[in-house]
Amino acid sequence: MPTAHQQSLPRYKLTLAYDGAAYAGWQVQPGHRTIQGELENALATLAGSTVKVHGSGRTDQGVHAAGQVAHADLPRAWLPRDLRRTLNALLPPDIRLLNASRVKGDFHARRSAVSKEYRYLIWNDEVMPPCLRLYRTHIRVPLAVPVMRAAAAALVGHHDFASFTANPNRPVESTVRHLTRLSIRRHGKEITIIARSEGFLYKMVRSLVGLLIRVGSGAVPPAEAKAILRSRERTARVPTAPPEGLFLWRVQYTRRSLSPAS
Amino acid sequence: MPTAHQQSLPRYKLTLAYDGAAYAGWQVQPGHRTIQGELENALATLAGSTVKVHGSGRTDQGVHAAGQVAHADLPRAWLPRDLRRTLNALLPPDIRLLNASRVKGDFHARRSAVSKEYRYLIWNDEVMPPCLRLYRTHIRVPLAVPVMRAAAAALVGHHDFASFTANPNRPVESTVRHLTRLSIRRHGKEITIIARSEGFLYKMVRSLVGLLIRVGSGAVPPAEAKAILRSRERTARVPTAPPEGLFLWRVQYTRRSLSPAS
Repeated sequence: MPTAHQQSLPRYKLTLAYDGAAYAGWQVQPGHRTIQGELENALATLAGSTVKVHGSGRTDQGVHAAGQVAHADLPRAWLPRDLRRTLNALLPPDIRLLNASRVKGDFHARRSAVSKEYRYLIWNDEVMPPCLRLYRTHIRVPLAVPVMRAAAAALVGHHDFASFTANPNRPVESTVRHLTRLSIRRHGKEITIIARSEGFLYKMVRSLVGLLIRVGSGAVPPAEAKAILRSRERTARVPTAPPEGLFLWRVQYTRRSLSPAS
Repeated sequence: MPTAHQQSLPRYKLTLAYDGAAYAGWQVQPGHRTIQGELENALATLAGSTVKVHGSGRTDQGVHAAGQVAHADLPRAWLPRDLRRTLNALLPPDIRLLNASRVKGDFHARRSAVSKEYRYLIWNDEVMPPCLRLYRTHIRVPLAVPVMRAAAAALVGHHDFASFTANPNRPVESTVRHLTRLSIRRHGKEITIIARSEGFLYKMVRSLVGLLIRVGSGAVPPAEAKAILRSRERTARVPTAPPEGLFLWRVQYTRRSLSPAS
């Protein structure tokens, strides 16, 4: 039950981009640099007191974000543009606050989220351009996008994705998820895999991508995707694609949850 | 006078891309990591003997390349694709051989070049996206591209560019150059300045860009560009733009100089 004091603290929705290469992921871990940790440090400096940051979800070690969302309650109200400028001056340059907005006290970055979009970026050519090497996964063997699309079509929908989570021993209520989009685009040598769902299992996007890469390279026929999904068992047929190509692209909320604070 | 032995060594044109952030520039310098140094080390491993690399020109500390060109003579002939694969396996990932081709013994990466193109990439917005921060110059104040174009138009052509070189004391035969292109494009928040010439003076591109940024931000009227050019004197009115936005984009050669080796 929140106290009257907690209720009165102004809450901010924070939209963040980061280069995950130097971090042990989103979540605070003692002895490791994390995105949440850097953000809580910067907010503590700005606020003069401990500030807890709640993310829409964790991103793993080395995973990037173009639009992660978090919320935090601050001891006093800030103009959003002042909060952004000040926080960016305190944060390291590989973490940027893109946008800050005041939200009502019942907005919650994780619980209010209705959908998340991840994008996985692949450079599909013999040679990786040096200035992209930290932000793309390099696949030398030519990938056949049409067969990747055929496999992806079999995975979209409301399914038990136990075959596509890295750690089935981690206790979860359910491994059923509704994958609303899994699409593949090619622009020249760049392939982008877009995955959207109301929620993802641990390492689910990198597991889906791992299978799609195997399908695209001809190692696995596209029809196998349905059988792997139905097996509900994680096997070596589904590798986990590396983190450097993965971006948490955006988190969507209902209009109601984003209505401005009074 | 080349000896019969030297004449017989097969010569290769090497097209290179690099992320310049970790290097003290192109040219070999004792005690520093340089692009030329890394390339000569990799070629020495591959060839089993010292190999001298000749670049089309130097790039400064922190400057990148999308299409630097060099040549080298190897003790034996290589299939270009084998040379590329082997050299890329030996080079660090921030230096890549994009293309190798056998050329005649009179091809010279610097002397045969007829034109060079540099591109300077600016991110013109309040917040710099983290994954671009190493490869763009961040300018927060909105730049007015039309006035930058007006200033650029006054600089294009055959002029004495003494006002646009960083070190006028460095002995050069002449500070006259023919700037054949200086154009400015905006795509959303990204501004690209393209400079093309048969040859550039030391830090000339970053000096031209330094002035154009001042013009675009309103600090210097565009009409001043002509007066600065005519003064033939380097002053504080022309700052040197930082290296992280600069790419040696491509080097052009005559068709004759690139005719295949017999």
